[in-house]
Amino acid sequence: MSGILEGIRVLDLTQAYSGPFCAMHLADQGAEVIKIEPAQGEQSRFFTPLKNGGSAYYAYLNRNKKGMTLDLKNEEAKEVLWKLIETADVIIENFKVGKFEEMGFTYEKMKEVNPKIIYGSISGFGLDGPMAKRPCYDIVAQAISGMMSITGHIDSDCVKVGPSIADSFSGTYLSLGIMMALFNRERTGQGQRLDVAMIDTLFSIMENAVVTYTVEGTVPGRLGNMDPAVAPFDSFEAKDGEFVMGCGTKKMWESMCEMMGRPDMITDPRYATNEDRCANYLPDLKEEVNSWTRTKTIDELEELIVAAGIPFGRINDIGQITESDLIKRRNMLWEVYDPSIGENIKIPGCPIKVHGQEDKPSKAAPDLGEDNEAILAELGYSESEIQALKESGAL
Amino acid sequence: MSGILEGIRVLDLTQAYSGPFCAMHLADQGAEVIKIEPAQGEQSRFFTPLKNGGSAYYAYLNRNKKGMTLDLKNEEAKEVLWKLIETADVIIENFKVGKFEEMGFTYEKMKEVNPKIIYGSISGFGLDGPMAKRPCYDIVAQAISGMMSITGHIDSDCVKVGPSIADSFSGTYLSLGIMMALFNRERTGQGQRLDVAMIDTLFSIMENAVVTYTVEGTVPGRLGNMDPAVAPFDSFEAKDGEFVMGCGTKKMWESMCEMMGRPDMITDPRYATNEDRCANYLPDLKEEVNSWTRTKTIDELEELIVAAGIPFGRINDIGQITESDLIKRRNMLWEVYDPSIGENIKIPGCPIKVHGQEDKPSKAAPDLGEDNEAILAELGYSESEIQALKESGAL
Repeated sequence: MSGILEGIRVLDLTQAYSGPFCAMHLADQGAEVIKIEPAQGEQSRFFTPLKNGGSAYYAYLNRNKKGMTLDLKNEEAKEVLWKLIETADVIIENFKVGKFEEMGFTYEKMKEVNPKIIYGSISGFGLDGPMAKRPCYDIVAQAISGMMSITGHIDSDCVKVGPSIADSFSGTYLSLGIMMALFNRERTGQGQRLDVAMIDTLFSIMENAVVTYTVEGTVPGRLGNMDPAVAPFDSFEAKDGEFVMGCGTKKMWESMCEMMGRPDMITDPRYATNEDRCANYLPDLKEEVNSWTRTKTIDELEELIVAAGIPFGRINDIGQITESDLIKRRNMLWEVYDPSIGENIKIPGCPIKVHGQEDKPSKAAPDLGEDNEAILAELGYSESEIQALKESGAL
Repeated sequence: MSGILEGIRVLDLTQAYSGPFCAMHLADQGAEVIKIEPAQGEQSRFFTPLKNGGSAYYAYLNRNKKGMTLDLKNEEAKEVLWKLIETADVIIENFKVGKFEEMGFTYEKMKEVNPKIIYGSISGFGLDGPMAKRPCYDIVAQAISGMMSITGHIDSDCVKVGPSIADSFSGTYLSLGIMMALFNRERTGQGQRLDVAMIDTLFSIMENAVVTYTVEGTVPGRLGNMDPAVAPFDSFEAKDGEFVMGCGTKKMWESMCEMMGRPDMITDPRYATNEDRCANYLPDLKEEVNSWTRTKTIDELEELIVAAGIPFGRINDIGQITESDLIKRRNMLWEVYDPSIGENIKIPGCPIKVHGQEDKPSKAAPDLGEDNEAILAELGYSESEIQALKESGAL
C-alpha cells in the first residue's frame, strides 16, 4: 500500500493477535511489513473462522503484509534473519519472554548489526520480574488487571470483555510507541527498545476506577450498563428489545421529562440534581423511565430521543452493524481476495482515516512463504543458495 | 517532561475522556501539550472522584500538560488561538461535529496559517453522513458497534465493557495517527487531516466476530468467559472464589488431566481433540473441571496450574491490582502533587515503556489557566495586553 509510512521496513515475528494487530496498523499506512513465520505457519493460521482450509482470522490481521518462512532453530535461517535486521527499521516480537534472546537475538546484538533499529516486544507481565515468564492469554490479563471485576451486571458474576482487548490494546500501544521512536529517530538518529505489557495496558484504561480506589479508598464494583456518576444513563426496555441512552446534562434530563410527559419529575425533589438522580436511580428512576419506554418500539424511541438531543443507541448485533449504512459510508469493511481461502472475503478496515490517502487494502494476507524468493534475492542470495536454504529446512 | 517528543507542540482543545487521553499519550513522552479550556474549566474537572473540590479524573488524564483558558465565543480569544495554531505542530479536538468549524476554525484556514499543521478530530460516527451530528457517549458506541452484543454471560442480558473503551481506544488511535503524520511530515513537510470515529474504533477490535459473520454468515453471541474456539478456557470455581485458566494446546490439556488425577480424560473420546472438547464443554467438561477445582483454594490452584505451564489468572479487584507488586515493579502508579486537590495523589502511569527514558510525571495536571500569562507572553502579548484580555473575558 502506498501511504504515509512508505519506505519503512518492519519485521513482524509475532503470532496470534497482539503483535499481528500492532504490525497491521503500520502495514495499513504503507509500511513494508514482512511477516516471518515458522515453516508450518504461525498459530493463527489455524484460528476460526476457517473457510476452504484458510483462516479469516489470519487474513484479517495480516492484510497488507509480505510473508516469509524461517525456522529459527536452523542456523542458516538465523543468518537470514540477521541480514534482514540489518535492513530493517523496526522489529516486533511477542514470543514468551526470553525465548527470542535464547535464540541469540538480543537487543545488544541487534544494535551492533543495526544501531538505529527499533525493537518492540509485547508480553503479559513485562520483560522481567517473577511473573515475566508465565504464559499470559487475554483472559488472564483481563482477570489479573481488574478489568473483569468491573465488567458485568450488578449482583452477577464478573465477565470478560467479549473480544480480546488486552491483545488489541497492547498491540496498538506498541504501534504508538514504534511511531514515537521512528519520529524521534528522524531527529536524533537513535533507535529504541520498547516494552509493552498486557497488564499495564489494561490498568491504563480503567478510566475512573483506579483513581476512585487511590483517592477515595473504595473498590469499584460492577454497574452493568449504568454510569457511576450520571443518571439516567443505562440500557432501558422498549416494547421490542433493549436500547441505551444517557442524560449527561440538566438540559437533556429536562428534555427527557418533557418528552415523557412527566414535567413533574423535573421538580420532584428525588430528582432535583444529578446527585439526587444517581441516589434515587435504583429502583425509582429506572422504573419511571422503563415504564414509559416499554410502551414504545425502539424505532419510535430513536426518533423521539434523538430529536430531543439525547445520546441514543440501538444495541446492534454483529450482523446488524456489519451490514449498516454507517460501516459502509466509513469504508470500514474491506474486500480482499484471500489466497489461502481462495475467495473474496470481507474484513474490518482501517479506523485511522487520513484524509487524501487511499483507504483500501493493497494486498491480502500472504500465503505461507509467499515472498521467500523475492526477499532472499533482494538480500543477495542466488537462486542456488535459495534452493539450498529450502533443502536445509531453513525456510 | 523531557522525552522523545520534546519540541512538539500540541494544542489540546478536547474534553472528557477520548481527546484528553489522546493528548496524554503525547504529553507522557515529552510533547508540550497545551490544554485549552473554557473559563469555567472543561466538563471533566467536575467528574468523580472528587477530593477537596478537585477531580482526580481530570488529574489523571491531564498530567504533563500545560493549561490555558480561552473563551472561544470571544473574538480576541479566537485571535489568540490563531496565533497558537501558527506555532503548533498538532491540534486536537472532540467538539460535536461541526462546532469548531462554526467558530471559524476550518482545516483550510488552519493550513493557510500553518501549512504543516496536523489536525485530528475524534467523533462518534465520523465527520459526515446522516449520523455525524448526533451526540455520542461511550455507551452509545458500545451499543451501536455490536460490542455490547458480544459481552456478557450466555443467556444473560448483554452488558457494556465497564470502562469507556470506545473513548480510550479512539483516543489512542488518534494518537497513533498523529505520530504517523508527524513522522511523515519530517520526511515530506506535509501536514494531515485525521479523523477517528468511535464506532469505527470498536468495529476494528471485534477480533474474530466480524469475520465470523462475513465468512460464515452466523451472528456471534455472548459466551461469558469462554473462548469460542478453545476448551477448556474459561473462569472456574475454586473453594474460595473464581479464577481463570485456558488450555490452548494439546500439551496443556494433557498436563491438566494429569494434574487433576484424571488421565482417563486424555483418552476419553468426548475430549479427544480441541473440537471435541469445545463440543462437549457444556455441561460435561466444565463440570469435570469445576468438580476438581472446587476442592482447592485459589492459592493451591495457582501453584499447581502455573507449575503445569498453563495460563492462570486470579480475578483481582481494582484494589488488589492497584496494590500489587506487579504494578509497583512496572511503575504503573505515579504519584503527583495535584494543585486542584492540594494533595499528592496516585494515578495510572504510562504503559509504553521506552527503555532508557524517564518513566515518571514531570508535572501534575494544570490548574485552570495556570499557564495563561506565560503562553501569552511567549506569543508576544505585553502585560497590559494580557490584562486587557482578562478584562474582556477572553481568558
